[in-house]
Amino acid sequence: MNKRKLLLDMDTGVDDALAIAYAVGAGAEIAGITCGFGNVETAEAVRNSLDLLALLGHPEVPVAAGDAGMDGVPFQVSDACRKIHGENGVGNVSLPHCGNPVPVPAHRFILDAARKEGDNLVIVCTGTLHNLARAIQEDRETVAKAHQIVFMGGALTVEGNVTPFAEANIANDPEAAKVVLESGLPMVMVGLDVTLKQRLTHETVDGWTACGKVGETFARIAGYYIDHESDRGSCALHDPLAVAAAIDPSLLTTHPFSMTAITEGPAAGRTVARSFPEDCKVQNVSVALEANPGFSAQLDRLLRQLFTELG
Amino acid sequence: MNKRKLLLDMDTGVDDALAIAYAVGAGAEIAGITCGFGNVETAEAVRNSLDLLALLGHPEVPVAAGDAGMDGVPFQVSDACRKIHGENGVGNVSLPHCGNPVPVPAHRFILDAARKEGDNLVIVCTGTLHNLARAIQEDRETVAKAHQIVFMGGALTVEGNVTPFAEANIANDPEAAKVVLESGLPMVMVGLDVTLKQRLTHETVDGWTACGKVGETFARIAGYYIDHESDRGSCALHDPLAVAAAIDPSLLTTHPFSMTAITEGPAAGRTVARSFPEDCKVQNVSVALEANPGFSAQLDRLLRQLFTELG
Repeated sequence: MNKRKLLLDMDTGVDDALAIAYAVGAGAEIAGITCGFGNVETAEAVRNSLDLLALLGHPEVPVAAGDAGMDGVPFQVSDACRKIHGENGVGNVSLPHCGNPVPVPAHRFILDAARKEGDNLVIVCTGTLHNLARAIQEDRETVAKAHQIVFMGGALTVEGNVTPFAEANIANDPEAAKVVLESGLPMVMVGLDVTLKQRLTHETVDGWTACGKVGETFARIAGYYIDHESDRGSCALHDPLAVAAAIDPSLLTTHPFSMTAITEGPAAGRTVARSFPEDCKVQNVSVALEANPGFSAQLDRLLRQLFTELG
Repeated sequence: MNKRKLLLDMDTGVDDALAIAYAVGAGAEIAGITCGFGNVETAEAVRNSLDLLALLGHPEVPVAAGDAGMDGVPFQVSDACRKIHGENGVGNVSLPHCGNPVPVPAHRFILDAARKEGDNLVIVCTGTLHNLARAIQEDRETVAKAHQIVFMGGALTVEGNVTPFAEANIANDPEAAKVVLESGLPMVMVGLDVTLKQRLTHETVDGWTACGKVGETFARIAGYYIDHESDRGSCALHDPLAVAAAIDPSLLTTHPFSMTAITEGPAAGRTVARSFPEDCKVQNVSVALEANPGFSAQLDRLLRQLFTELG
């Protein structure tokens, strides 16, 4: 178990919301949430993060906003994302608005946290790698002070979810993914290779309604997602698995690779390992190939306990 | 070390030739070579296999021909393959012609060998999976009697070599690859993930010229390949690694997956793992993710000894 502080970098939609709840339920100290575009616009990710933190009893956690898009162009949330995560990113459930972001851009917040916490910090990214790439480009050595980077994104051995080649978080900013993957910094990639196998069902979330008001709210948020993320009667626990693995690395079986991201052409957003010996000297990306099949049951236990405590 | 007999299924070009030499040098008993299209036409693969076996002192090993193409259409060898392996598949080096194939189609030969040898047989495919797929389609339970299947082909974590998605052996018959991968039979995939990292240099093959006439012939064959397979001044030891791993599985670090091959569209010939739990019940494909970095030195030692013995 990892007792380090977590910095969460999120495009706060439904599975990010579950990931925040998991972090709180696991007793992890959250150094802050930095927000970016992806499932929602950056401003919506900030709003959702603030509201969810308050709902979960942690309004003191700072939230910082990243860029609204790439190269000065505001990001357009896809219709698919609006459907999957709801118009507001949290399954069309209205949350009481609470608090404001800190006046620091996300990438600077990441750098400040890495400088302050050093090896006590794990950076967990569950949206694009845009904010982290900016931090690395500005001051790689400061990011390197952090203990570890864990990100949800990519698909090394399986097909993508937005194209046959690309997973959404990488597809939304392939250039940023390339910067991060090629940085040489130690990181864990929690991609579709493992997240699609972690399933949450209506049966489970229905049980949360008996755990008080917060549980009821989360049951509505997650229930919406289960209905819209696939037609399988269950949803994938993408982002919660990344946060859980940051807290307990033993959840995953990983293998080290030298990785990059394809930035152009039909495979843009694909994450691949490098082939030739001269390109593989630094195998800095530990890619998750298996995850503990008991994870969804563990998440259920942990969230029920949290929701019951919150009442 | 595996003392089982090997059945080699090959599209006998240069690296297949090195693989045959490796098998002979390692003292493996070769139950037969079945031939198919790919690097060369099937008839050329038969010719090269017979000639190479004679050159290596094993004219008694039976050679069987498979189909000349798919669905009755003769296979057209690509210009790239003609360049890489030479017009005749063995680096434009003329070998004395020796012997004739047995009058049994390749897929029947595979079935006969599996029936006769059972658990004493390892089937090693270094070309397309066409012949093996036909054997499985005709009588899966007989193929299942063999101890193991090892194939060179595919690219799970890295880009392809004939397209950004596909490796040549799979690209040449994606449907066959799908049949084999989805058969549920235990197999080891030795793909570009590991083979591109095993390099053979001019310096090494030049050393073979001092080991007698056979060594000199192999130095010319391999030297041609080094000059034409890439512009890196070295070539990949694709097929020898598969044969070596069939003899000594400890050469590889593998991970089990449920796999399939994409048969249509831009990614035709891509090998991918399945994503969803319900599709992953049988993880029958052990994909090589690492290979012993000492392999090319080991191949050099073994071939020098063989060539010296052959004079």
